Amino acid sequence: MSAKEAYQQLFDISRKAHVLNGIECLLHWDQETYMPSGGASIRAEQMKVMASLVHSAKTSKEMRTAIDALIDIETGTVKSSQLTPAQEAAVKRWRRDFRIEAALPGWFVEEFAQLISHSQEVWKTARAQNNFDLFAPYLETVIEMCQRKADFLGYKEVPYDALIDLYEPGATTANTTKLFQAIRQPLVELLKKVSQKPKISDEFLRVTVAEPLQNQFAKKILDAMGYSFQRGNLSKSTHPFCQYMGPNDCRITTRINPNDFMSNLLVVMHEGGHALYQLQLPEEHYGSPLGDSISMAVHESQSRWWECSIGLSKPFWNHFFPLLQKDFAPVLDTIPQDNFWRAINKVEPSFIRVEADELTYPLHVILRFEMEQDLISGKLAVKDIPDAWNAKMKELLGIVPPTNTLGCLQDTHWSWGTFGYFPTYLMGNAYAAFLLETFKHENPQWDEQMSQGQFSFINDWLKKQVHQHGRQYNSDELLQNIGKKPFTAQPYIDYLQTKYSEVYQL
Amino acid sequence: MSAKEAYQQLFDISRKAHVLNGIECLLHWDQETYMPSGGASIRAEQMKVMASLVHSAKTSKEMRTAIDALIDIETGTVKSSQLTPAQEAAVKRWRRDFRIEAALPGWFVEEFAQLISHSQEVWKTARAQNNFDLFAPYLETVIEMCQRKADFLGYKEVPYDALIDLYEPGATTANTTKLFQAIRQPLVELLKKVSQKPKISDEFLRVTVAEPLQNQFAKKILDAMGYSFQRGNLSKSTHPFCQYMGPNDCRITTRINPNDFMSNLLVVMHEGGHALYQLQLPEEHYGSPLGDSISMAVHESQSRWWECSIGLSKPFWNHFFPLLQKDFAPVLDTIPQDNFWRAINKVEPSFIRVEADELTYPLHVILRFEMEQDLISGKLAVKDIPDAWNAKMKELLGIVPPTNTLGCLQDTHWSWGTFGYFPTYLMGNAYAAFLLETFKHENPQWDEQMSQGQFSFINDWLKKQVHQHGRQYNSDELLQNIGKKPFTAQPYIDYLQTKYSEVYQL
Repeated sequence: MSAKEAYQQLFDISRKAHVLNGIECLLHWDQETYMPSGGASIRAEQMKVMASLVHSAKTSKEMRTAIDALIDIETGTVKSSQLTPAQEAAVKRWRRDFRIEAALPGWFVEEFAQLISHSQEVWKTARAQNNFDLFAPYLETVIEMCQRKADFLGYKEVPYDALIDLYEPGATTANTTKLFQAIRQPLVELLKKVSQKPKISDEFLRVTVAEPLQNQFAKKILDAMGYSFQRGNLSKSTHPFCQYMGPNDCRITTRINPNDFMSNLLVVMHEGGHALYQLQLPEEHYGSPLGDSISMAVHESQSRWWECSIGLSKPFWNHFFPLLQKDFAPVLDTIPQDNFWRAINKVEPSFIRVEADELTYPLHVILRFEMEQDLISGKLAVKDIPDAWNAKMKELLGIVPPTNTLGCLQDTHWSWGTFGYFPTYLMGNAYAAFLLETFKHENPQWDEQMSQGQFSFINDWLKKQVHQHGRQYNSDELLQNIGKKPFTAQPYIDYLQTKYSEVYQL
Repeated sequence: MSAKEAYQQLFDISRKAHVLNGIECLLHWDQETYMPSGGASIRAEQMKVMASLVHSAKTSKEMRTAIDALIDIETGTVKSSQLTPAQEAAVKRWRRDFRIEAALPGWFVEEFAQLISHSQEVWKTARAQNNFDLFAPYLETVIEMCQRKADFLGYKEVPYDALIDLYEPGATTANTTKLFQAIRQPLVELLKKVSQKPKISDEFLRVTVAEPLQNQFAKKILDAMGYSFQRGNLSKSTHPFCQYMGPNDCRITTRINPNDFMSNLLVVMHEGGHALYQLQLPEEHYGSPLGDSISMAVHESQSRWWECSIGLSKPFWNHFFPLLQKDFAPVLDTIPQDNFWRAINKVEPSFIRVEADELTYPLHVILRFEMEQDLISGKLAVKDIPDAWNAKMKELLGIVPPTNTLGCLQDTHWSWGTFGYFPTYLMGNAYAAFLLETFKHENPQWDEQMSQGQFSFINDWLKKQVHQHGRQYNSDELLQNIGKKPFTAQPYIDYLQTKYSEVYQL
């Protein structure tokens, strides 16, 4: 068999597993959006059976043989010299994925899927009722399972390494700690300077805007971003997320508070950014690593790009603020645009991560990063989470949430068992700022263009630089290729300093 | 192994197939409700793979062995004398289902699933654009596949027998024709009498009522019926339907025309009737025939029961009309209740089956029944469908639809490949009227109770008489058990005569 044929054979086998995985994604999306609560029990069974089918497909003998024809599964030595560089990268990713998947026993994957489908429903109720005790026993089991998962996967230093690597290949607890430390110090200094400035007034952002009006405006923004409802959908869920079902079907969700329209609009931009990444992956490679996204950290660079770098920028609102005033009239009629822009960039320690300003946001992530390490290492017990959470909030942000709903119950990640995911949020912010440097350099008119309502060049640039490559490069390679220098957090720190100097006239 | 153990083993195997089937149902529901059009292509692949998995589960050696331990698959002889009557009935149904499923080759089931997922999308576009030619090539393939299906399944007289039996076990083209003939003659006579009466004025039903208001009222009705949103969901689709995902999750859809609120309310009652049947099946038997519905005709008796016998009755509106006036104020303020009741029961030949009055409705079904026979026998070619449809409309209803959208493209059944389904709509009407006789006899205060806003006794009665038995009885047995006499169409004819004599003062 030629290398070309062997590659095609592997691709075909892998594609089938992806089709199954798309079904699993639909089960998840539906559970969060339209499934009635009564459906939870049978859904957990459905999740279990689908997880098992996907796992079997990804770890089949057929798959192993097909991968091993191109790359030695044990050593990682590529066996064919006739592959293109992209294909060679792809087989390396296939090997990685296979080794991870094969490390987990089938019974474990099934049990885990069923558990998190249940724990997710319990979390929703616990969050709504501010009842941490209800959720605690489920979370205990989830954490036990995640500890076992780390053991199955293996690690060099600490179990948490195995988990974080799932979401950002190559990341470890140590190098992530180092990155976060580089960010934390300048951030805290900046925060201190900001706190000495007069408070920005933002009460006018709390006006009531009915859900249909908010929705209509969110759709205008999505349209400008390049997100089409022919290939997507906007629904509501307890925790916003983006779900990819397969080529040309990537959906987003939001949550709507009639008295906080900006929260909704920024969530929509955030999730829209995730969706555009998926929708601009090369469709012809669907099912292979070349048709897949690199990592959750790169994904987060795309969502935070749209939410913060674009959605909280002046030029964006040069175009959109007059439209907002018109559509939401009369509630913003008398607000000068500059006040609006400063208000949406107001820095203030707050309880909810996804609604935090760009300056306090990293501290929310650091909180979770530190707690996850302690939970996975066993240093922190589940019953002690609320106290530990509140103590860390006090330490990092200087405030304590009045309820667990506004504290340790706010995020969906633990109920979904995605320990190791949180750190990628901060990495993604740093990646986004790193990308933004090159973007601005290559698009010197970017602010004028956006002010005039032109946005498609942004998405085009992201497609060309990031999306079209699938997983050909890892994060470091991608960032190096784009920035022509190795990734550092410096552009992120510079970005925050420049921005908040302007917002707060430091 | 004891009979009890053998039964439990079969039940467990069957349950797994049902869990998979629930996933297939979600793919279907989603395609009709929230899937963006771009998702159609990958969805067809997902449908194909799920259909294959479900088929494999239903025809596995394991399943065959488990069934054959209790009943001879070839001869139908029950092998154990230790089964309860309900269990004995269940194993007979299992055998029937297995033989049907096993008669279809796996490749056929896969291809069929993929085809109809595609053809469904094409039908939606064709219907929206009034473009029959777009749909025709898909319909041709669907019909060819249905012809092959009939061949695989086998039949005594004509291929169509094999298809109709899928939706109403025991039904044949001959006995259905006989039943429909018994209904047709008195119906046509009644229609003639009605047509000689002055027309009923119903313009006030065409007032504009915004979608949220319609929705709100629909939910009030569903609530009264006993349909809970903890166990269901109401969404929109091109063609209304009810989808069962598994215990405690049965969803319905509607379509909303702001200028025809009654269409929406009656659709919701119709689909709600289907859903209540599924939701009141004994949950502990989920996965066995005792946890399943008898047939599409019995299902239709439940939906038409709520839509027509209840939803178009006087006592129902004694309670709901004042609420309707209040909620939709001021548009119905000046309308006397009796005028409203007569208007919603107005008889007038019209184009859309699901919106037809009770008197012309059967003729729509007869039209499809006759055309389906001709299409499956090959007597009628797909390209000739629009002309044939219009000629039959002229013959049966005296009117010709101005477009194919209002004619042969109106229903979703052909694009879904469910040839043989339509006749059950008329059977269901006749079954409903047969049941209603006993219901009224056993609940002599039924009209007073409904007038006072009491509805739960209806659902309770249906559960006791119909739902709780699952598939223990076939249609004939069930109707005989309830009515204490063999089923005939006479109660249906009597019902129509009594009702329309009152509406039109014949």
